[in-house]
Amino acid sequence: MGNTMGQMFRITTWGESHGDAVGVVVDGCPPRLSLDVSDIQRELDRRRPGQSEISTQRKEGDQAQILSGVFEGRTLGTPILIGVWNKDSRSRDYEHMRTKYRPSHADYTYDAKYGIRNWMGGGRASARETIGRVAAGAIAKKVLAQEFGTEIIGYVKQVWQLHAQVDPDTVTGEEVESNIVRCPDQDMAIRMIERIKQARKDGDSLGGVVECVARNVPVGLGEPVFDKLEADLGKSMLSLPACKGFEVGSGFGGTTMTGSEHNDPFYSEGGRIRTRTNNSGGIQGGISNGENIIIRAAFKPTATIMKAQETVDDEGNPTTLEGRGRHDPCVLPRAVPIVESMMALVLVDHALRQRGQTGEVRGW
Amino acid sequence: MGNTMGQMFRITTWGESHGDAVGVVVDGCPPRLSLDVSDIQRELDRRRPGQSEISTQRKEGDQAQILSGVFEGRTLGTPILIGVWNKDSRSRDYEHMRTKYRPSHADYTYDAKYGIRNWMGGGRASARETIGRVAAGAIAKKVLAQEFGTEIIGYVKQVWQLHAQVDPDTVTGEEVESNIVRCPDQDMAIRMIERIKQARKDGDSLGGVVECVARNVPVGLGEPVFDKLEADLGKSMLSLPACKGFEVGSGFGGTTMTGSEHNDPFYSEGGRIRTRTNNSGGIQGGISNGENIIIRAAFKPTATIMKAQETVDDEGNPTTLEGRGRHDPCVLPRAVPIVESMMALVLVDHALRQRGQTGEVRGW
Amino acid sequence: MGNTMGQMFRITTWGESHGDAVGVVVDGCPPRLSLDVSDIQRELDRRRPGQSEISTQRKEGDQAQILSGVFEGRTLGTPILIGVWNKDSRSRDYEHMRTKYRPSHADYTYDAKYGIRNWMGGGRASARETIGRVAAGAIAKKVLAQEFGTEIIGYVKQVWQLHAQVDPDTVTGEEVESNIVRCPDQDMAIRMIERIKQARKDGDSLGGVVECVARNVPVGLGEPVFDKLEADLGKSMLSLPACKGFEVGSGFGGTTMTGSEHNDPFYSEGGRIRTRTNNSGGIQGGISNGENIIIRAAFKPTATIMKAQETVDDEGNPTTLEGRGRHDPCVLPRAVPIVESMMALVLVDHALRQRGQTGEVRGW
Amino acid sequence: MGNTMGQMFRITTWGESHGDAVGVVVDGCPPRLSLDVSDIQRELDRRRPGQSEISTQRKEGDQAQILSGVFEGRTLGTPILIGVWNKDSRSRDYEHMRTKYRPSHADYTYDAKYGIRNWMGGGRASARETIGRVAAGAIAKKVLAQEFGTEIIGYVKQVWQLHAQVDPDTVTGEEVESNIVRCPDQDMAIRMIERIKQARKDGDSLGGVVECVARNVPVGLGEPVFDKLEADLGKSMLSLPACKGFEVGSGFGGTTMTGSEHNDPFYSEGGRIRTRTNNSGGIQGGISNGENIIIRAAFKPTATIMKAQETVDDEGNPTTLEGRGRHDPCVLPRAVPIVESMMALVLVDHALRQRGQTGEVRGW
Repeated sequence: MGNTMGQMFRITTWGESHGDAVGVVVDGCPPRLSLDVSDIQRELDRRRPGQSEISTQRKEGDQAQILSGVFEGRTLGTPILIGVWNKDSRSRDYEHMRTKYRPSHADYTYDAKYGIRNWMGGGRASARETIGRVAAGAIAKKVLAQEFGTEIIGYVKQVWQLHAQVDPDTVTGEEVESNIVRCPDQDMAIRMIERIKQARKDGDSLGGVVECVARNVPVGLGEPVFDKLEADLGKSMLSLPACKGFEVGSGFGGTTMTGSEHNDPFYSEGGRIRTRTNNSGGIQGGISNGENIIIRAAFKPTATIMKAQETVDDEGNPTTLEGRGRHDPCVLPRAVPIVESMMALVLVDHALRQRGQTGEVRGW
Repeated sequence: MGNTMGQMFRITTWGESHGDAVGVVVDGCPPRLSLDVSDIQRELDRRRPGQSEISTQRKEGDQAQILSGVFEGRTLGTPILIGVWNKDSRSRDYEHMRTKYRPSHADYTYDAKYGIRNWMGGGRASARETIGRVAAGAIAKKVLAQEFGTEIIGYVKQVWQLHAQVDPDTVTGEEVESNIVRCPDQDMAIRMIERIKQARKDGDSLGGVVECVARNVPVGLGEPVFDKLEADLGKSMLSLPACKGFEVGSGFGGTTMTGSEHNDPFYSEGGRIRTRTNNSGGIQGGISNGENIIIRAAFKPTATIMKAQETVDDEGNPTTLEGRGRHDPCVLPRAVPIVESMMALVLVDHALRQRGQTGEVRGW
Repeated sequence: MGNTMGQMFRITTWGESHGDAVGVVVDGCPPRLSLDVSDIQRELDRRRPGQSEISTQRKEGDQAQILSGVFEGRTLGTPILIGVWNKDSRSRDYEHMRTKYRPSHADYTYDAKYGIRNWMGGGRASARETIGRVAAGAIAKKVLAQEFGTEIIGYVKQVWQLHAQVDPDTVTGEEVESNIVRCPDQDMAIRMIERIKQARKDGDSLGGVVECVARNVPVGLGEPVFDKLEADLGKSMLSLPACKGFEVGSGFGGTTMTGSEHNDPFYSEGGRIRTRTNNSGGIQGGISNGENIIIRAAFKPTATIMKAQETVDDEGNPTTLEGRGRHDPCVLPRAVPIVESMMALVLVDHALRQRGQTGEVRGW
Repeated sequence: MGNTMGQMFRITTWGESHGDAVGVVVDGCPPRLSLDVSDIQRELDRRRPGQSEISTQRKEGDQAQILSGVFEGRTLGTPILIGVWNKDSRSRDYEHMRTKYRPSHADYTYDAKYGIRNWMGGGRASARETIGRVAAGAIAKKVLAQEFGTEIIGYVKQVWQLHAQVDPDTVTGEEVESNIVRCPDQDMAIRMIERIKQARKDGDSLGGVVECVARNVPVGLGEPVFDKLEADLGKSMLSLPACKGFEVGSGFGGTTMTGSEHNDPFYSEGGRIRTRTNNSGGIQGGISNGENIIIRAAFKPTATIMKAQETVDDEGNPTTLEGRGRHDPCVLPRAVPIVESMMALVLVDHALRQRGQTGEVRGW
């Protein structure tokens, strides 16, 4: 259970990291959307391992196949099945971990929950599961862009203790893609890259923060009470491997302000109601107000490190474990398209819900 | 839409702040649970306004009535309807805001979404909606305590820039309730109370952070992939009015550590697998590992302040607005039972899902 | 669990027959719909007991109260809570059945499922639960009529072995309401009434069939594969107490035809594609085709009879049981507004889903 | 939307009849169930075309592949993806129907709903979609048999006007499989086969009724109010292509009885509460009572016939259409494993819901 997300634009991901394939079923995509496998491949290429010198050297081509739901280049309104076959899975890299629980991984909890696990890699807990999310997210982005003009841009905001300065209102996708760490603050990007290389040398790993902005968002998305837009955005991010925190707008920082400092004054501009500041992060009362939606997701340092660590085996005997295989010392650069995908999926779902409920989506 | 939460233990809240009543329907509560209205009233009394000199002076008795689902003191397994009649609603306090959008409130977005709103108070966006959550949470807490021995304790961790020191592993409910700000760091509690009184005097408001711990949690709760335990906890907190951020375990702070510092080594203790540190916050791979679950929710300063603010009316004309009525300068103390309720609701729901799926809940 | 129906127009009923109240929460009703309590009361009055000499003589006024979701005569888009307080519940009528299982009632299965039941009446299995359905159905009918011009008319098609002749394409609501058995075949209505009176005299009960037609239905409602329109209609009817069968269009009778007899030829009329016959009952491939939707629901004879019956008590000891209290010898006339309500609820839900998914509802 | 069924044991089917593949994702299967692809293939072989002289001569091998969720022969508790590649799809058979709407098919309604359709075959409306259902049903049957000892047997009860005599309490799977029409009344089977051959010769088609029984069913399955067991069974059957009616227990026939004839008296046998008759069909108040569950599903005659028929093209112009290709003159024999699958899926889902809710499943 729990492998499905969304109500009107609903995705179900499937596949273990070292099984035959991974993928996604997308149910509820509007019909007649122009869709080509290249739309999906482009985003998968941003996510895949081995892109650069700072990511894992695993060579996973991750070629997407669309098996249903698209006919003569357009969506049918029926389920879209996208699969990626697993090819370069060296399960011998995992043999030594067959009975050992990797610290801060999901090995122990999967065993405790299910009484069984695929010990060859992380199974469903592997970041490989996010392939299905990114494939579905590529479709969601296309719906948002074509029908509503909404644009989503994510970037690395922080690596370890290195914080970038980025203006979410003006940053461009080109700036994000201009360096391998996907941080549009070019000076900080250089320092981040150096720090990640150092971590690899140390056999250690780093965490950080991805910030993501949605611009030109329709007004009125989000369902009070439990399905507030920030609640669904938060859930989607916190469902990502290694994500330990989420903020919208002023977030934790806003708690140190007073109300008179924090409130966003309204004003009118060309017949449209705007706010002078955006501490709300584009969402008020759980509903989008038309300002840019700005969120941040915190990712812990990758659990897989190349250093010896204390742990136990599946019978509780003390042992030590040293990581092998090919792993990212820092997942942040590859997390960017994943975070964008989650935001796109949530926004599309809420747009369709709003359209169904009220018959119109204001600002589109 | 969006007024329902949970899959196996499912609640639906209803009611506007200035309508006839507010309440909740709880569907899926296990049968034969001993339940009295006093179980619910106790928690509502911790939530209600007018408890102390630092909360709003509105006198809302908030007396709960159980209208269905309980027979001869025990739950029937059928929907439990709990209602609280609205009594002390001085809608004249709101008359001046009939057409003005309060900054950082939900007035504008509700109008934009629905084309109509109950301008007498916040409607569904009012904190009054949380009455239904707390009533349902009281039942959830009882299920957790009776069937599984799980205990949930929340407390104020931060008000404005004042940070408390609290040990989540040992804090008691009595310590939390020993002062009106619900902060078990007694020295800091005094400073917080002073700061809140100052804010009231200033006609301003404050935000802060509630931390909440669940102890003696069964192993195996949480559904990969999208319904990870932290994802559902995060969603539940971010669905609360004024919540702008969520963390589990090391949270945002953990992003500045390296993997070797952050990983939680496993060890064995009396046949049970434990972790030496708890940066994971009791959840690994989206599944509880039996350690204490520790989360934090960030609340922005209350939007309602007694100072004049720039805004517009519902036709976009510039105007100013000054808060009236009786409001909390800081919602944190009253947010404590609400945060506890959300955590209880998520844990019960996942416990029932796990029991259905595998037939057992380990560690209970 | 299981007390909720619908995805976009979602209702949750609550309340035991002999508890304090029964009712419904409607979530997802479009905003700004004009709605008065009299809209609901009108339908409840068609459902309530004691309407005529052939229904139960219990005097339940069944006065509806709207407690939320409506403001100044219009819906807010927020949950609508409707409650009816139980007044004339003579639980002493049930005392003798405290430990005896009434044959073909839900007494035994509730005990087996939950280990507890409200023995004062049927609890949730009572037809009294349908009050919430009819209240919600009244809203659904209004949405359908106002926004889409769709009209729903149900009537008694069969009582016991008495079959009426009714043309679903032309029957009017006035014809249905023109006699107390709600059968527009006036000659047959007289015979049905006589037969029901006889059954009452005998202390026995009768079943029958309600037929229901929806006219002026938008094209395109219904979601392949599992949520086909006939599947959701069927589920809704089979969720009614005493319903044992469901048909759409040609139904069971159509199984004796050949394909060349059964197929509905297409033709074109004024730019609209029509079918010459309507064996499909207005639905093809799970999707409405714009022709009249025609369904039939079979209701078994009421389980409560005034004759001595063999049964067991809750410890399995053999005993006999004789019905007391005031009961309908035939539920069919009162089932008419209930069947109409279920159809309305399903159609509205699918209309909103279709609108969300494709942005348009053809034929509206 | 609408391609998902179930709450705890949830399946999503995907694939068009003339796309690359069809299949299913099963989410919520209990972990550690022994599962081999042959378990699935066995049931698919009962469903596939070309089995006998009375079914279509299309040669679809329909070889299943399991791509995820199973590891070393046991289920992982993660999503199980099963796919069948489409091979023998002669889309040229459909070229002549590119713009013509086949009478009583879903061609027109899909176009009306989505504004697009895969005209090469029936797309999602094709019976080929049921491959995913049968694959998932094979797993569901295995769970029911292994964990609860429940057995499900379907058979052809009626073809056209030919009605078989079968005792649902004693019929065996071997009897069902002993002839190509899957009717255990051997004399009637011969007549049915002759009638089907005649229909093929005539270029015409036939409908009929499948009856299905579940034996050794746990007590307590089914969720009042809307998710009554018969409601979910009915929905599942009515979601099948060509199904126009559903009955449980006495069904439509029961409407002609009086209550005193219809009620099922309780008695006690070896500590177990039983009913002397089973007009209830094993379900009372929406909850299984431990007696055999007996349902019937009515299938209209197949819409595809080899005779010229009046219709229109997609611009509304009158035209005629004559079926080509290879089609079943009567789908009933192949519908048997499909009906069994739907029943198994509903029962497993309710068993897991009941286990989650109450912690026990009585009678297992």
